[in-house]
Amino acid sequence: MHSDVAVLGLGQMGSALASAFLRAGHRVTVWNRSAAKTAPLVAQGAVAAASAAEAQRSAPVVAACVLDYPALTGILDPALSSRTLVNLTSGSPEQARSLATQLASEGVRYVDGGIMTTPPGIGDPRSMILYSGDQDAFAAASDLLSALAEPINLGAEPGRAALYDTALLGIMWATLTGWLHATALVTADGSTAAHFTPLATRWLGPVAGFVAGYATQVDAGSYPGSDATLDVHLATLEHLVHASEVREVDPALPRLLHDYARRAVEAGHGADGWARIVELLRAKA
Amino acid sequence: MHSDVAVLGLGQMGSALASAFLRAGHRVTVWNRSAAKTAPLVAQGAVAAASAAEAQRSAPVVAACVLDYPALTGILDPALSSRTLVNLTSGSPEQARSLATQLASEGVRYVDGGIMTTPPGIGDPRSMILYSGDQDAFAAASDLLSALAEPINLGAEPGRAALYDTALLGIMWATLTGWLHATALVTADGSTAAHFTPLATRWLGPVAGFVAGYATQVDAGSYPGSDATLDVHLATLEHLVHASEVREVDPALPRLLHDYARRAVEAGHGADGWARIVELLRAKA
Ligand SMILES: NC(=O)c1ccc[n+]([C@@H]2O[C@H](COP(=O)([O-])OP(=O)(O)OC[C@H]3O[C@@H](n4cnc5c(N)ncnc54)[C@H](OP(=O)(O)O)[C@@H]3O)[C@@H](O)[C@H]2O)c1
Ligand SMILES: NC(=O)c1ccc[n+]([C@@H]2O[C@H](COP(=O)([O-])OP(=O)(O)OC[C@H]3O[C@@H](n4cnc5c(N)ncnc54)[C@H](OP(=O)(O)O)[C@@H]3O)[C@@H](O)[C@H]2O)c1
Repeated sequence: MHSDVAVLGLGQMGSALASAFLRAGHRVTVWNRSAAKTAPLVAQGAVAAASAAEAQRSAPVVAACVLDYPALTGILDPALSSRTLVNLTSGSPEQARSLATQLASEGVRYVDGGIMTTPPGIGDPRSMILYSGDQDAFAAASDLLSALAEPINLGAEPGRAALYDTALLGIMWATLTGWLHATALVTADGSTAAHFTPLATRWLGPVAGFVAGYATQVDAGSYPGSDATLDVHLATLEHLVHASEVREVDPALPRLLHDYARRAVEAGHGADGWARIVELLRAKA
Repeated sequence: MHSDVAVLGLGQMGSALASAFLRAGHRVTVWNRSAAKTAPLVAQGAVAAASAAEAQRSAPVVAACVLDYPALTGILDPALSSRTLVNLTSGSPEQARSLATQLASEGVRYVDGGIMTTPPGIGDPRSMILYSGDQDAFAAASDLLSALAEPINLGAEPGRAALYDTALLGIMWATLTGWLHATALVTADGSTAAHFTPLATRWLGPVAGFVAGYATQVDAGSYPGSDATLDVHLATLEHLVHASEVREVDPALPRLLHDYARRAVEAGHGADGWARIVELLRAKA
């Protein structure tokens, strides 16, 4: 075991991970299916392994970041036994749990990770990587892992990191698409994304504040509309749907949001606030 | 004209506006359909008008904040002529434009406003109110209006403030609903909103950074996937849809987002980034 960590997969993300380990002074073995991608990392001081199995024998911690679970399970080797696998490949919570169970029976210590940044954010302590799984293995590796981003420990349940990861990405896609829809509206009237967007990013500050306040409501199961009621939201959502339609901007997202508000109001919750919608989301579709 | 400003409508928001004017030292006349709501403001130093018309004669600037446009047009009086009407009632850009045109012919100087906060945020200079309309009237009133929040001037086109308002609210509803959906997922597995939400609000920081970067792409009409490609987004969106389905959380929002990504990939844009979706939103539905 000549290295501190082995990195399997040197795509955009895996290369950024290996590079951050090297910059933090760790000894790093690298492997990639197409061998050419090892060259820039070897130039930075990494050792290239001749095979995935050799890489898995080279270090006590193996960090994997390939396309998906089928790609990952295709390269795992019995050499991994007694090692810690930190799996940074994206997957569902169910995939993480079933791989963790299988590997535990083979003597592998499994930690699942969800990377909450793009490759340029790797190595920046303001970035987050979510982890869950074997708690002893995580504790032993956490100094090493802090070279990548701030490690956030979500506990022993191996699917938890992937669940939080997918949940947070869902917020990202919703916000990005809400912003793109808003941008389509204002540019239809001759404005530019450059003019509108600084107001949009500033507005995300108060929106984050609303979210923080509503968290208490969700846990309490009580949603008083003390700031703004669903009745008021519904009336203003009509303007958003209307403004989209007259500009020929796709009204699907506003209509979905309007539909939630309308259903909550029709169920008698017009005096509640937006957090009440969580009850509709939980109802079987 | 014994007052600096008259406030028409003393609901949750109108009361907050009148109170902020008073705290800033202005002389304020107030009026509300149900007269009882004037009492707390009179106790703070306001003068109650006996009718909406009397209120509109009492000050050079009349700020209106009632439920909607029909409520507003029902209380406007010829006394408003030569006054400035600052309309803080929510409406569509089309409603603002048509009221501005009508009132201009009656000698009223019209400024439309979009309040980007809830009542507790009124009086806080970190809050924003968007304005558009008569630029001389806005300049003359802007000191007064800065008692409410930072005034953001969007120019002479009277519908612009309402358009930006509805566009920003659209981002809010999308983000809130994305967060509620995420919260429904993690609470289905035994976590709490209180545990998940601090990570979600922290994550909105990088998301705001992505938005800022994509604004340039939208204006340029070019969407290079240099951080994360639609191919990668589509694969990870499958996990979100799947995670929703197995937890019986309504998959409508993830499915809509997945559908946009799928359509963009099928149209040959898999190597582009998420901002490419704006082209689908602009296509006639
Ligand atoms: N990019 C991001 O912003 C980001 C953020 C968070 C999480 N992630 C996750 O990180 C993982 C990698 O993403 P990426 O951006 O690095 O993608 P990428 O640049 O497309 O790289 C994919 C990697 O997977 C390897 N691979 C694919 N199929 C394989 C197979 N059958 N056997 C062995 N190796 C295989 C590729 O090897 P070759 O070079 O030989 O093709 C390459 O190393 C994904 O799960 C992604 O969801 C990415
Ligand atoms: N609350 C917020 O967070 C917020 C944020 C931004 C913008 N806004 C906008 O501000 C406006 C007022 O909202 P709010 O929260 O203050 O609502 P609210 O508490 O329900 O107050 C509604 C106000 O409208 C008056 N009104 C209703 N129908 C009327 C009619 N036909 N004639 C005369 N007055 C009438 C009510 O008078 P009575 O007291 O006699 O019923 C009351 O003063 C809305 O356009 C809303 O969209 C609110």
